[in-house]
Amino acid sequence: MADRTDSTASSVGDWQKVTTSPRMPVPDQMRAWVLGGPEELTLTTKAVKAPGKAEVLVRVDAVAICATDLEILKYGTPAMIEGGAPFNKNYTPGHEYMGTIAALGAGVDEFAIGDRVTVEVHAGCGQCKRCRMGMYTSCHNYGLNYGEQDKGHRANGFTTDGGFADYVVNNINTVIKVPDDMSDEEATLVVTAGTSMYGLTELGGLVAGESVVVIGPGPIGLLAVAVAKALGASPVILVGTRENRNAIGKKLGADITIDSRNEDAVARVRELTGKGADYVVDCAGNETTVNQAIHMTNRGGKVCLAAFPKAPVSFDLGYLAVNNIYLYGIRGEGRSATHRAMAFMAEKRFNAGLVHTHTFPMEELPTALRYARERIDDAIKVVVSMRGNSASPKAAAE
Amino acid sequence: MADRTDSTASSVGDWQKVTTSPRMPVPDQMRAWVLGGPEELTLTTKAVKAPGKAEVLVRVDAVAICATDLEILKYGTPAMIEGGAPFNKNYTPGHEYMGTIAALGAGVDEFAIGDRVTVEVHAGCGQCKRCRMGMYTSCHNYGLNYGEQDKGHRANGFTTDGGFADYVVNNINTVIKVPDDMSDEEATLVVTAGTSMYGLTELGGLVAGESVVVIGPGPIGLLAVAVAKALGASPVILVGTRENRNAIGKKLGADITIDSRNEDAVARVRELTGKGADYVVDCAGNETTVNQAIHMTNRGGKVCLAAFPKAPVSFDLGYLAVNNIYLYGIRGEGRSATHRAMAFMAEKRFNAGLVHTHTFPMEELPTALRYARERIDDAIKVVVSMRGNSASPKAAAE
Amino acid sequence: MADRTDSTASSVGDWQKVTTSPRMPVPDQMRAWVLGGPEELTLTTKAVKAPGKAEVLVRVDAVAICATDLEILKYGTPAMIEGGAPFNKNYTPGHEYMGTIAALGAGVDEFAIGDRVTVEVHAGCGQCKRCRMGMYTSCHNYGLNYGEQDKGHRANGFTTDGGFADYVVNNINTVIKVPDDMSDEEATLVVTAGTSMYGLTELGGLVAGESVVVIGPGPIGLLAVAVAKALGASPVILVGTRENRNAIGKKLGADITIDSRNEDAVARVRELTGKGADYVVDCAGNETTVNQAIHMTNRGGKVCLAAFPKAPVSFDLGYLAVNNIYLYGIRGEGRSATHRAMAFMAEKRFNAGLVHTHTFPMEELPTALRYARERIDDAIKVVVSMRGNSASPKAAAE
Amino acid sequence: MADRTDSTASSVGDWQKVTTSPRMPVPDQMRAWVLGGPEELTLTTKAVKAPGKAEVLVRVDAVAICATDLEILKYGTPAMIEGGAPFNKNYTPGHEYMGTIAALGAGVDEFAIGDRVTVEVHAGCGQCKRCRMGMYTSCHNYGLNYGEQDKGHRANGFTTDGGFADYVVNNINTVIKVPDDMSDEEATLVVTAGTSMYGLTELGGLVAGESVVVIGPGPIGLLAVAVAKALGASPVILVGTRENRNAIGKKLGADITIDSRNEDAVARVRELTGKGADYVVDCAGNETTVNQAIHMTNRGGKVCLAAFPKAPVSFDLGYLAVNNIYLYGIRGEGRSATHRAMAFMAEKRFNAGLVHTHTFPMEELPTALRYARERIDDAIKVVVSMRGNSASPKAAAE
Repeated sequence: MADRTDSTASSVGDWQKVTTSPRMPVPDQMRAWVLGGPEELTLTTKAVKAPGKAEVLVRVDAVAICATDLEILKYGTPAMIEGGAPFNKNYTPGHEYMGTIAALGAGVDEFAIGDRVTVEVHAGCGQCKRCRMGMYTSCHNYGLNYGEQDKGHRANGFTTDGGFADYVVNNINTVIKVPDDMSDEEATLVVTAGTSMYGLTELGGLVAGESVVVIGPGPIGLLAVAVAKALGASPVILVGTRENRNAIGKKLGADITIDSRNEDAVARVRELTGKGADYVVDCAGNETTVNQAIHMTNRGGKVCLAAFPKAPVSFDLGYLAVNNIYLYGIRGEGRSATHRAMAFMAEKRFNAGLVHTHTFPMEELPTALRYARERIDDAIKVVVSMRGNSASPKAAAE
Repeated sequence: MADRTDSTASSVGDWQKVTTSPRMPVPDQMRAWVLGGPEELTLTTKAVKAPGKAEVLVRVDAVAICATDLEILKYGTPAMIEGGAPFNKNYTPGHEYMGTIAALGAGVDEFAIGDRVTVEVHAGCGQCKRCRMGMYTSCHNYGLNYGEQDKGHRANGFTTDGGFADYVVNNINTVIKVPDDMSDEEATLVVTAGTSMYGLTELGGLVAGESVVVIGPGPIGLLAVAVAKALGASPVILVGTRENRNAIGKKLGADITIDSRNEDAVARVRELTGKGADYVVDCAGNETTVNQAIHMTNRGGKVCLAAFPKAPVSFDLGYLAVNNIYLYGIRGEGRSATHRAMAFMAEKRFNAGLVHTHTFPMEELPTALRYARERIDDAIKVVVSMRGNSASPKAAAE
Repeated sequence: MADRTDSTASSVGDWQKVTTSPRMPVPDQMRAWVLGGPEELTLTTKAVKAPGKAEVLVRVDAVAICATDLEILKYGTPAMIEGGAPFNKNYTPGHEYMGTIAALGAGVDEFAIGDRVTVEVHAGCGQCKRCRMGMYTSCHNYGLNYGEQDKGHRANGFTTDGGFADYVVNNINTVIKVPDDMSDEEATLVVTAGTSMYGLTELGGLVAGESVVVIGPGPIGLLAVAVAKALGASPVILVGTRENRNAIGKKLGADITIDSRNEDAVARVRELTGKGADYVVDCAGNETTVNQAIHMTNRGGKVCLAAFPKAPVSFDLGYLAVNNIYLYGIRGEGRSATHRAMAFMAEKRFNAGLVHTHTFPMEELPTALRYARERIDDAIKVVVSMRGNSASPKAAAE
Repeated sequence: MADRTDSTASSVGDWQKVTTSPRMPVPDQMRAWVLGGPEELTLTTKAVKAPGKAEVLVRVDAVAICATDLEILKYGTPAMIEGGAPFNKNYTPGHEYMGTIAALGAGVDEFAIGDRVTVEVHAGCGQCKRCRMGMYTSCHNYGLNYGEQDKGHRANGFTTDGGFADYVVNNINTVIKVPDDMSDEEATLVVTAGTSMYGLTELGGLVAGESVVVIGPGPIGLLAVAVAKALGASPVILVGTRENRNAIGKKLGADITIDSRNEDAVARVRELTGKGADYVVDCAGNETTVNQAIHMTNRGGKVCLAAFPKAPVSFDLGYLAVNNIYLYGIRGEGRSATHRAMAFMAEKRFNAGLVHTHTFPMEELPTALRYARERIDDAIKVVVSMRGNSASPKAAAE
C-alpha cells in the first residue's frame, strides 16, 4: 500500500499542502462501508481524501451506532430526504466516531498528528444567517456542499462521508481532543452527551438546584440525566418503561426514577415537585410523552424535544400557551456543547461508558447494527472498533 | 356622597395611611358591573376599596373589551377554572382600563394624584421562583390572594376586581403613565400592544431587518404588526382572512399582506423570504395556523403563540425539532413590555387607535359586549367610556 | 422570660397573625450586639420582632464574619454612607447567619417551624425597575425601609438588623433550606459561595471546559474556585500571594495555582491558556489585580469584579475596549445564586468548610472579629456559634 | 485596459472560477492609494485581485474617512501594532466604502453583479472559539491571514487591502445590499451606524422607554443617538461640548442635549432621570467621560465604551462594583449589527446623511484627510467619491 509520503500515489484531493508524518503513514486506499440502496451496506475500498484548509484527516479507531444511522440505512440521509435526491450508491454513513489525527490540512496548527480525537457532526457554512449567529447546526446551507452549490457545509455521516471507514476528513470545528485515560468506546459517546448538553444549554443551562425531568432512557436520555446532574440539577427525575434502563439512569445521577407503565408520570412529577418540573427533556418523542412533558412542567418552565414523532400528533398547545412554557426543538449538538460535555467527562463527573454495552470489530458492522436495531442482549450503545483488525492501518503503524 | 376626606365615611380597607386630595374627592360608593352566573352582568353599587402599601386607587375613565372578557363572562375567570371555584357572584371583570390616580397607598411616591394612567394585568406575588426571576405573569401563586392563602398576587379583572367600575385598586407595578396628547381610547390599548411586545421580546427582540410574519389580524395581531415594524422588522407580513383587517394591518406597518383564503400562506411566505420567516407570531391559534406557523419558519427561527387552541390539535412537532425551531407560549404582558409598547406609542411610531372602532357609555356595557362578540359593524376594539356619564365622579370632580 | 405563646408579653410588631409553635417557644427579649459609634459593639437586650407578611423569624444558630462586617463596624453601613445618615446607635450587624425557623408571618407556608435555614442578604422592594427585572440586589430603593419612605427593601445586617443576635426577621426571599447533614458552620458560607456563583452567573454561567482565573484567595475567591470547578471549568487557575491559601484553593478545585509574588501572573496565564483566559474573577480588587485581570483575559472574554478598590485607580480601559472585554461589577448574591450554590454544596461537589477556620461563642464576638481582622492563626472564615451558650433559647428548647 | 473577460490579462489570484459580466468589465489594473512609511500615501497602480470562495469583488464608488484611518496612517494598522510588524509599503487603507458588485467568487449566489452594496470590516476565521460563538469581531485569529499562518480572517483596510482603491475583494459576510434610493455617501455610514447598533445590542437592545445617554457627538456618537431613538429609547440625552454638534444630535433624535462645558453632566443626567441613566454609551473615551459615564448610570445600569483612552486613566472601579454596573468594551460592528442599522436607515427612521459634511474626488484623498483630521469647515464625516473621476471604471462602464 503506497504511503502518502510517497508522492507517486494516486489519490483524491490536493495533497500538496497537506502535512503528514512518517509516524502515521497514510495509505492511498482504505476500507469503507458504503450504502447502495436501502439497507444495502457493502464493505469496499475507497481512496483516502486529502484534508483541505481548516480540515484534518482522522484515522477512525472506533465508531458508535446511533438510532439515526438505522434510519439512514433505511430511508437515506436527511439531505437526500430534504433534497429529494436518490441514494448516491457511494456514501459512507457513521457519525459517532473517534480516532487519531493522521494528517493536517493547510494552515492547521490547532491539532497535531497523533492526537486522539472524537468528533461532532455539523460544520456550518460560516456564511448564512444562522452560522453568523453561532448556530451552525441550523446552517441554512445544510446539504449544499456539492459542485457549483458548494457552500462549505459538512455533516459527516449525513451529507459527506462518515466514520464506517478507516479514514474521514473533518473540519477542525468538529474535532475534540480526547484525554489519555478515556477509552475509545467512551470517547465515541461525546456527540451523544453533547446533544444532551445542547438541549440543557438551550433551556438556559443554569439548572443547579432546579428540577429536571428526562423522559426516555435511551442513550441521549441517559446522558441527559448525567449532564443535568453534573450541572447540579436537583432533583433529576428519569421517566422510563424499562427497569434496567432506569437502573442505569440511577447510576448516572437520577435521584428518582418513574416507571411510566406503573405510575402516572405527570401526577408523580407534580407530587415530587409541588408546582411541576422546571425543565423537562423529552428523549422519547411520541404523542404520549410530548403531552406528558408539557403537563408536568410548571408555569414558566421549559421543555426540550430531543426526540420527536415522525408524524403530526395530538398536542395540547393551549396548555403550553396558558402556562408560558417554551418548547425547544433542538437539532444536533450546537453551541460547542460537545466541548462542555467532554469537560465533564474528562473530570469524570459521570461515566458515559455505562451506556456502552457491546463492541464488534469493523467487519461485523451488520451484526453490530442488528444488535442496536433489535436491542439484542439489552444493547444500548453498540460500538464498532477498528483496532485489532488485520487490515487496520493503526496496527500497521504501531 | 361622602368624601374620603370625610373620616366618618364607611368604607372597605384601611384608609388611615391613604393619601387623597380635595382635587380628586373619592366617594365611599361606586358603580360597578358584577358577574353573577355565566353571562349574568348586573350594574350595582360597591364600596370603594382603600389602596394598600405599593398600591394606588385608579378612577376608571375608559375600558376596552378583550376577547378574554367574553370568555370570562361565559366560563368564569381563569382562577375559577384553574381552582375549580364557583362564580363568586360579586366579581367585577374588565382588565384593559385607563384612568386617573385618585388616591395613593402607604409609601407611594411614584405617582401623584391626578396622573393619567393606564394599566396592565399582572402583579406577581414577588416571592415565588418566577417572580424572583422577573417573570411575574408566570407567578406560581396566581390566584392565591384570598384569606389565609394570600400571597399578594393580583390580576385585576381575573382574580381581583377589574375595570368595569368607577374605581379599581392597582399595585403600582401595573400602572403606566399616559402622555397628555394620547386619547383615553388609545391608552386602553397599551396592554394589547404590550402583549404583542412581550411576544416579540421573548423571541429575542432584535428583529430589525428580520422577517416577521403575524398570523391573525385581531387586536393583538394588528398591534404585533405595528410593534414589529416599530422595532425595524422587514419585511413584516400579515396573514389574515378578512381584507378590511389586512388593510388596517398595512396602515400599521405590514409590508405585505396575505389573504389565506386565496393563497397558500406557507408557500407565499417561503417565496417572499427564500428560506422561510425568521419569526412568526401566531395570533389566530387554531390547528391550521399553528402548523402554518412552524412550516413557514426557517431553520433556527422562532414562533410565538399569542393565541391558542382550546383543545389538543394535530401538530407537526417533528418539523419543529428537525428545524431547531423554538416555540414560545406567552402568558400576558411580561418583562415590562407594556412600558416599551407605551414608549413607541408615545413617540407616535404607530397609531394603535386604528384598531379602536367603537365607544359606548358605561351603562351600555352589554351592548358594547355584543358588538365585540358579534363583530357588529366590523367592530375590532370596543371601548366603554366613563366620561360624560351623569353618575361619573369625574364629572362631579370637574 | 415570657413566651410568645404568652399573649401578655410586651413585644415589637404585630404578633396577631404570626404562627408559633410550642416546640420552638419564642421569648420576648433576646441578646443582641449593637453598634454605637465606630467600633463600639455592645451586647445588650432587645425585643424580638414579629415577622410580617412573607416573613419568618429565624433563631440564629451560627453567624460568619465577613470582611464587610469589619468595614461596617468602622465606617457604618452602606445605607448610612450612601444616605449620609449617622450611626443610629441601635443597629445589629451580621449578615452571614444560619439558624432555625422559629415563627411564620402571615401567609407563609413555604417554610415550617423547626426548618434549618441559612440566609442571603437582599430582599428587594419588588416595585422598582430592577426588582421587576429580577435584579433585587440592585434594588433602586435600597435603604428606603424606614417610616414614610418604606418601600419594603431589606438588607439584613446592612439596612435592617442582622445576625449577631438570637433572632432575626427575614423576608422569605432571603431564606434557604439547609440539608440535615450540613454543619452550621458550612451553612453560614452559602452567601459567600452564592456571591461567587452570582459572579460566574453574570459571566454567562456556561463555563464547562472554559478557562477561569480567580485572583485573590480570600473566602469569595476560594469559593469562586470551587464553584467554577463544580460548573466544569477547566483549567481553573488561582492567583494568590500566600501559599497556604493557594493550597486550600487546590483542594477546592484549582488545577493550577500561581504565586504572584514569584511569577508574572499575566504572562503565566497567557502561557497556560494560549490566547488568555476566557473568564477572570477578581476577588482582590486592587490596582494591580484589576489590570492583571483584563490583561490576562482573551479577546471577547469576560471579567468579574467581586472585590474593588476604595478609590479610583489607574486602569487600562483601552485594552478592554480593543479586546471586546466585558467587565461586570457585581453587587451581592443576585439571580437566586445562593440556591445554586447550595445545590452544589448539598451534593458535596466541594467542601466549603475548608475556608472555615475558627469558631467562637457568641459572647466572644469581639475576639472573633479580631481574629478575622488580623488574620490571627491564619484565620480565613471565623464563625460565631450561638449553640452551647447558656442563654441560648435553642438549648432551652431542647 | 484589458478586461477580465480577456483571458490573456495578467492578474492576481485564480480567475478561473470567478463569474464576471460584460455589463461590468473588470480591468486588470486599478488605481490604489498605498501607505509607505507613516503618513506616506501614494496613488499608484495595482493588479485587481480575484475573489475566492465566498468572496465578491466590489468596485468602490465612495469611501468615508474614519478617525481610525487617521490613526493607521500615523501608526500603522492594528495588525502591525499588535504583531510588531513593520509598515509593509504596499497596503491600501480605507474601510468605510460602498460600491457595486463587479465579480463573484466560486459558489456565490447571495449577490449578483451590479448590486449596490456597502461593507463592514470583520470577516472572522470561522474556526476560533469566538467565531464559533458568532463573535467574529473578536476573532482570535485576527491578523493571521498571510502565508502559512492563513486562518482566513480578513479585516479590509486593517489586515487586508481596503477601499481607497478602485476595487476590493470582500468576504460575503461583510457585504450589505443598499436600497436604490440611498445615496452613496449615506451608504458609507452603515458601518458607523452599525458600530453604534452593536454597542446598544450588547447593552441588551431592549431600550424602548429607557433612558440612554450618549457622550461625545462624533460620528459614532451622533449615530448612537439616532439608533437609540429608533429603538424607542426615551429620553435620549446627548452630552457634548460643541453646540453645532449637539444641534445635529437633536435632529437625529436627542430629546435633550447637555453642553458639558457649561453644565455638570452627571448632576444634570441625575436630575433628568431621577436615579441615573439606564444606559450610557461613551463615544468620547477620555478620563473625564469614562468616569462621568459610570457616575451617571443608575444601579444595575450598563455602560458601553465605543471610544477609549490610549493610556491608562484614573477610573472609579469601586463605584461600578458597588452599583452592579456592567461595562462593555466593544470592538467593531459585531452580531450583524450593520444589518439592523441598515434596516432602520432603509426605513428612513433617521437621516444618517446629517453627519456627512464634505465630499472630495478620489485624487484628492490627502485633502479629504486633512479636512477630517483638522475638522476644517466643521467637517464631521468626509467622503471620497470615485464617481465622475476620469479614470473611474464606473464611468467607463456606463
